[in-house]
Amino acid sequence: MTEHSLWGFSRALYRAINERQCEELEALIDDDVEWAIYGPIDMFPFLGARRGRAAVLEVIRQIAENVRVHRFDRESIMLGADSAASMMRYSLTALDSNKPISLRLAHFAQFKAGRLVSIRVLVDTFDLVEQALGHPIRLPKLASS
Amino acid sequence: MTEHSLWGFSRALYRAINERQCEELEALIDDDVEWAIYGPIDMFPFLGARRGRAAVLEVIRQIAENVRVHRFDRESIMLGADSAASMMRYSLTALDSNKPISLRLAHFAQFKAGRLVSIRVLVDTFDLVEQALGHPIRLPKLASS
Repeated sequence: MTEHSLWGFSRALYRAINERQCEELEALIDDDVEWAIYGPIDMFPFLGARRGRAAVLEVIRQIAENVRVHRFDRESIMLGADSAASMMRYSLTALDSNKPISLRLAHFAQFKAGRLVSIRVLVDTFDLVEQALGHPIRLPKLASS
Repeated sequence: MTEHSLWGFSRALYRAINERQCEELEALIDDDVEWAIYGPIDMFPFLGARRGRAAVLEVIRQIAENVRVHRFDRESIMLGADSAASMMRYSLTALDSNKPISLRLAHFAQFKAGRLVSIRVLVDTFDLVEQALGHPIRLPKLASS
C-alpha cells in the first residue's frame, strides 16, 4: 500500500514555505491545478484563487516571504482514494512584524496520479485579521439570543 | 445500504432552523455531543463551543431566531462510515436587519449509531462580519508580495 498523496504534498509544502525549496512541491502539482484560499485579498495578496502550476508556485513563494510555519496539528482528517480533507491549526510567525499567529483552517484537496489537481482552503479569517492587526476590531453585538 | 447519517441530520437541521421544528433533530443528537462553530462570539453569541444535547438544541434555537436559510450548496464532500466533511455555501437572511448573507463554511462531523457525537464548523468569518455590518472594514495591506 502506497502512502496517500496528501503526506508527500504536505511535507513538500512545508519545505517550500520554510526552506524556500520548491522543487519537490513542483513535481507534486498538476499543470492545470485549481487553487483557492478564501480570505481578504486586499490585506493578504497571497490569498484568493489561482490556476495552473506557475501561478500556484508564485503564490507559495509569496506566502514563504510572509510567514514561517512553527508547527501544525491536524484536528480532523478524512482520506479518500484521491482526496483528502483536514481541519488544522497552524502556529506561524508573520515575518514582517515578527508577530506570532495561530490559525485554524480547513482544506479539501483532490489528487490525480499523485499530483494536486484542486485545493480549497477556508480560514477563520476574522481571527487571522485581528491577530495580524495586533488588536481586536470593535464589533456591535448584532444577534438576539 | 442505509442512508448516511449526514443526510438525515442535514434535513433535520434545516427544518429546525427554518421551521423551528426540533423534534427530529433532537433524536439525531447524542446526549454528550461536542459542538463548535468557530467565530467572534461577541458579535454572534450563538457561535462558539457547546457540550451536550440540551446546550446544542438551545444554540440551534438561537440560530433559528437570527437567520433563515434560503439555500445551501455542497462544494466538496467526503463521507466515511461514521464521519462526514463538507465545504458549503449558504444563502441566509439575517432576520433582525433583513440583510442577505452569503456564507462559506466547512464542517467535520462524527456520528455514532446514527447520532451526531461531534461537529466542528469553520466559517469565513471576516466575510461574515463585513456582510453583517453592511460595510467593509478598512484594512491595511500587510503582506509583501
